[in-house]
Amino acid sequence: MSSELNHPGGKVRLYVEAPLGAGLRLDTGEGHAHYLLHVMRAKAGDRVGLFNGRDGEWLARIVQTSKRACVLECEKQLAQQTEVPDLWLVFAPVKKTPADYIAQKATELGVRALQPVITRRTIVSRVNIVRLRANAVEAAEQSGRLTVPEVRAPLAFDKLLETWPRERRILFCDEAGEAPPTAEALRAAPKGPWAVLTGPEGGFDPAERAALRECDFVVPVSLGARILRADTAALAALAIWQAVLGDWC
Amino acid sequence: MSSELNHPGGKVRLYVEAPLGAGLRLDTGEGHAHYLLHVMRAKAGDRVGLFNGRDGEWLARIVQTSKRACVLECEKQLAQQTEVPDLWLVFAPVKKTPADYIAQKATELGVRALQPVITRRTIVSRVNIVRLRANAVEAAEQSGRLTVPEVRAPLAFDKLLETWPRERRILFCDEAGEAPPTAEALRAAPKGPWAVLTGPEGGFDPAERAALRECDFVVPVSLGARILRADTAALAALAIWQAVLGDWC
Repeated sequence: MSSELNHPGGKVRLYVEAPLGAGLRLDTGEGHAHYLLHVMRAKAGDRVGLFNGRDGEWLARIVQTSKRACVLECEKQLAQQTEVPDLWLVFAPVKKTPADYIAQKATELGVRALQPVITRRTIVSRVNIVRLRANAVEAAEQSGRLTVPEVRAPLAFDKLLETWPRERRILFCDEAGEAPPTAEALRAAPKGPWAVLTGPEGGFDPAERAALRECDFVVPVSLGARILRADTAALAALAIWQAVLGDWC
Repeated sequence: MSSELNHPGGKVRLYVEAPLGAGLRLDTGEGHAHYLLHVMRAKAGDRVGLFNGRDGEWLARIVQTSKRACVLECEKQLAQQTEVPDLWLVFAPVKKTPADYIAQKATELGVRALQPVITRRTIVSRVNIVRLRANAVEAAEQSGRLTVPEVRAPLAFDKLLETWPRERRILFCDEAGEAPPTAEALRAAPKGPWAVLTGPEGGFDPAERAALRECDFVVPVSLGARILRADTAALAALAIWQAVLGDWC
């Protein structure tokens, strides 16, 4: 009996690189084949959703399986391609577990790009881009997104500000200073491209804070008086942005 | 040389049960003694912050140490007792890691109580209250709070609604239905006691959704079209509540 594959969260969806279109076939590659055949116990004839960030979402049928491969054929387009709001997350790298969490949750919360930034107080020196990307792909598959956020190479703080596209506003979560509340600042702010910027565990250095506050594209905001961990601050700010300026409003 | 003990996130703060007041002494107990003496390498004369949820925050000096104990003496009150806004989180239990995360993040985001609720689609049957509480204590210590959220015994969904204090509104994160955006609904809603309610991975059952929507204290809201994991939905809703009705506004 053939069927649509489901897990407790809903339909099984896979992100692939190949083009998608009526009748097109693709091999899922070994990772997805393992997941389909051994974790989900899929058989030939079963159907899953596919997306590639360009061609919308397709219902595809498993037409051929072997030990380490799985060939799928696109049957029907389920959704036209859409994009999330134009929001980036710029964040100082943190340890492995909160970094996984940031990549997953920021993807669910609908960011277009993840940009690590190395600040003076950043303790974590190595950024595992491959792992960030894997977390983002998995979260995109589970959240129903039709795109995977771009994971960018880390930039030093000074370089980030020097090369910043000035039409993109930065919501600067300033834990140290006097700044207006986030929702209020966003309600008064224009729509358009934005980024949320959060610092490392020890916060931004005074010179970094001063440099940020001098930029006309930076909107400093406060997330209240309690001390938030770096990952909590990032996710709280993303949620409030989506609620006030993004696609939750 | 005596000093205030610091970790990368700031001053060391401990939650204790004992009364706090000028000159009062207390034994930290073995867990905190281990943390102070062996993790933080504290010595007699070092100072830490103490809070107990009743007497504000005190600077206390280590006056005596032994292998498994540490006696502290309160020197000076650093802050008067304060309370977080009157917000609860009512959540369907999830697996260990996201449950840890919910307890930590909800504490940072300033909830007064954590209430597990067993819904029809709740897969996790055992709720580890001791572990939830330990996560809440640690997050309260690190976030600068002067209280630890109350961790309540799990309630069945029907019992929860039957015994609900009707003056407390419920922000019901309804992933399945037509509901107004969260920020908009909250801006139109009254201040006062609130709770955020989030379901299990598979969402609420149709009968549960219908029962919720019949209650006049329930405010159904949407968190956008992407599918959020249970922990993401809880934290996003708490952040938006704080930004619109809580102490971030």
